[in-house]
Amino acid sequence: MRTIFLPQSQDWPGLIGRPSMERKELSDRVGEILESVKSGKDKALLLYAEEFDGVSLNDLRVTSNEIAEAVKMVPEELKQAIKTASGNIDKFHSSQLLPEKEVHTFPGVNCWRKSIPVEKVGLYIPGGSAPLFSTVLMLAIPARIAGCTEIILCTPPAKNGKINPVILFAAYISGVTAIFKAGGAQAIAAMAYGTESIPAVYKIFGPGNQYVTMAKELVQQEGIAIDMPAGPSEVLVISDGTADPSFIAADLLSQAEHGPDSQVVYLTDNKDIIPKVMEETKSQLALLPRRDIASKALENSMIILLSSLEDCIGFSNLYAPEHLIINTANPDILAAKVVNAGSVFLGPWSCESAGDYASGTNHTLPTSGYARNYSGVSADSFFKKITFQRLEKDGLKNIGPVIETMAEAELLTGHKNAVSLRLKKLKND
Amino acid sequence: MRTIFLPQSQDWPGLIGRPSMERKELSDRVGEILESVKSGKDKALLLYAEEFDGVSLNDLRVTSNEIAEAVKMVPEELKQAIKTASGNIDKFHSSQLLPEKEVHTFPGVNCWRKSIPVEKVGLYIPGGSAPLFSTVLMLAIPARIAGCTEIILCTPPAKNGKINPVILFAAYISGVTAIFKAGGAQAIAAMAYGTESIPAVYKIFGPGNQYVTMAKELVQQEGIAIDMPAGPSEVLVISDGTADPSFIAADLLSQAEHGPDSQVVYLTDNKDIIPKVMEETKSQLALLPRRDIASKALENSMIILLSSLEDCIGFSNLYAPEHLIINTANPDILAAKVVNAGSVFLGPWSCESAGDYASGTNHTLPTSGYARNYSGVSADSFFKKITFQRLEKDGLKNIGPVIETMAEAELLTGHKNAVSLRLKKLKND
Repeated sequence: MRTIFLPQSQDWPGLIGRPSMERKELSDRVGEILESVKSGKDKALLLYAEEFDGVSLNDLRVTSNEIAEAVKMVPEELKQAIKTASGNIDKFHSSQLLPEKEVHTFPGVNCWRKSIPVEKVGLYIPGGSAPLFSTVLMLAIPARIAGCTEIILCTPPAKNGKINPVILFAAYISGVTAIFKAGGAQAIAAMAYGTESIPAVYKIFGPGNQYVTMAKELVQQEGIAIDMPAGPSEVLVISDGTADPSFIAADLLSQAEHGPDSQVVYLTDNKDIIPKVMEETKSQLALLPRRDIASKALENSMIILLSSLEDCIGFSNLYAPEHLIINTANPDILAAKVVNAGSVFLGPWSCESAGDYASGTNHTLPTSGYARNYSGVSADSFFKKITFQRLEKDGLKNIGPVIETMAEAELLTGHKNAVSLRLKKLKND
Repeated sequence: MRTIFLPQSQDWPGLIGRPSMERKELSDRVGEILESVKSGKDKALLLYAEEFDGVSLNDLRVTSNEIAEAVKMVPEELKQAIKTASGNIDKFHSSQLLPEKEVHTFPGVNCWRKSIPVEKVGLYIPGGSAPLFSTVLMLAIPARIAGCTEIILCTPPAKNGKINPVILFAAYISGVTAIFKAGGAQAIAAMAYGTESIPAVYKIFGPGNQYVTMAKELVQQEGIAIDMPAGPSEVLVISDGTADPSFIAADLLSQAEHGPDSQVVYLTDNKDIIPKVMEETKSQLALLPRRDIASKALENSMIILLSSLEDCIGFSNLYAPEHLIINTANPDILAAKVVNAGSVFLGPWSCESAGDYASGTNHTLPTSGYARNYSGVSADSFFKKITFQRLEKDGLKNIGPVIETMAEAELLTGHKNAVSLRLKKLKND
């Protein structure tokens, strides 16, 4: 880890950069995959499954037998843990459904909004070394709470043609309506365009590698909404001298083990704690099964000494971290000053993994500085809000002249006429 | 207008298409403009102002003198109308700020969300034949309500180097913090990358021609958020036989006059009203100053007879119109069935122009079927929501084992360690 002592604030922007993707070549390659699924549909997906997943599939859709089998295979303790986490996620996301009131904006003019679920949503869950069943919960539970009618899930099959049973169990209890064996950019294409087996959806959610991310960006340009742009996962930890160095090291490592491109930043106003955190990081790292990955991530990571906690939160707001841990004697003071972050963890006992799994907050969060302009996934992500208005006769009489004056000034006579004609009719009544 | 009688529901998808953009060439041309502003900054903008707006500017920023002058030039009646409309927009959008409560998801585990304004936003207002000052209100008022600290506005100058005074007045009273003379894709580039004069922003809003729309899509891929993808404006009117045909005609025409590519659709279950609406449309069209534009739009437009009002709302949900006018004897019955629409107008007195200007709802809405997966602009558009969580000692004791079990099953030992280490410390306490 790079250690930086008291950088001047004019040098901060140089420290907040994230690795950028080589876009052009990737975009061409992914564009080809999208085209091929668009035209070849199921047949193209089956070919890609052979090519990329090394498996010859007969059917893309997971059967109810396969799900029932999977449910039996998951150990009881894990089932209970998943159910407890689901309960918390459900509770927090359900609290986000707030009824809005009709507003009388002007005498005789009433306006209101209604939240209507996006009818068809698609969730992508990556394959790879770790079965990310927690992400199934984080996407499917708010979709179910919102009331989406079609919640489909795509995830790549293993070489034996199966999906990890815990993923199937999580999907089963979260309200996913259909599960398909498809991975990578080709799965995104399938959910965007539809195939014989996989229905087209209106919005696509979920993490993935750079192919998946690029595919989501490309289909977004064709009218499919996506949860948010994505980059490597990251954490920023702020502590003063009161924090336990072993906690800080563990939090940094829990992020570093995600992938070699994970971003890990530690800010403190206390010089003395830095060597202790480094020592702890070193010794805990040695015991981690994923230490090779974590070591690579730590190579790009930074420990920065700043002159005050005030400066720490200032730097953090500039960096806009996905996860922000504030492990100080009085975290509320800094929490009130957070402007850009995905999810914030307060105090010594709120480790990031609590939010990753079970506190109830969502773990699908803006990375790469997108916390400046995007929110994490919430129940809101599965709704669109439609406005309604009703003008009574008197309402149009009252507000009509205002509309006429404005429409005329915008040179839109047709807009004015729609009012004038009605006002005339009302006068003659 | 094309008239279609009782199409079978399997033929509906063929009727809901919108014109599509020729993307590749446009994307290349706009990409060049973005690059040139990224490197040339103000100098590039001044050159483009000469090339596209036919004006040689000394300064891009509108001075306070220019604003003061403009405020004097706007007629008092128009000022009052704008203020009344602003009041309604303010009232409706302020009602969207709902406080959320802290949620105790599990004993000792507390989660909450906080809405924080996007710090820097950019609004784009097109030039052209009509001065769209109403759009200034629709974007700047919710930005001010949200509390964005920097609200900048770009709009192309006229040949005399000035901005339309009503646009300046609207910006002035709505809380815009700086106004710049820049139009087209180059203005979007300036707000995305920043120049010597124009600060970079995190989110860009506003309508525009296909160059502006493409520029927004391209900068979105570089991490700038945008309000939504855009296409030509559109209205869908549903009526039964009780509606006044002259109202329907006026509503169709008020949309048709927007541009030659505007989409206008009229659905009814009453055969007899169709010739009356056509007759009215013809006679009102003849009197419209923008009749050439409106005629072109009507050429692509449709009147469809369906067998029931139920079918009308079914078709509308498939079409997903930007504006939906329900002018029937009992509009509430259909309103309850709206699934996909931008903004809905109920009853005979709720013409679209009411929402365009003054009812209080926002007129920046999803077009081209994007109402299936996007909401219109609201106060929400100027916020991002940050989640917070605090686990007390007991909270971690209670939920810790759940996290450990799940992290272990995802093979993320580092995630588990961050909990185990803390639980161990608590046991030793």
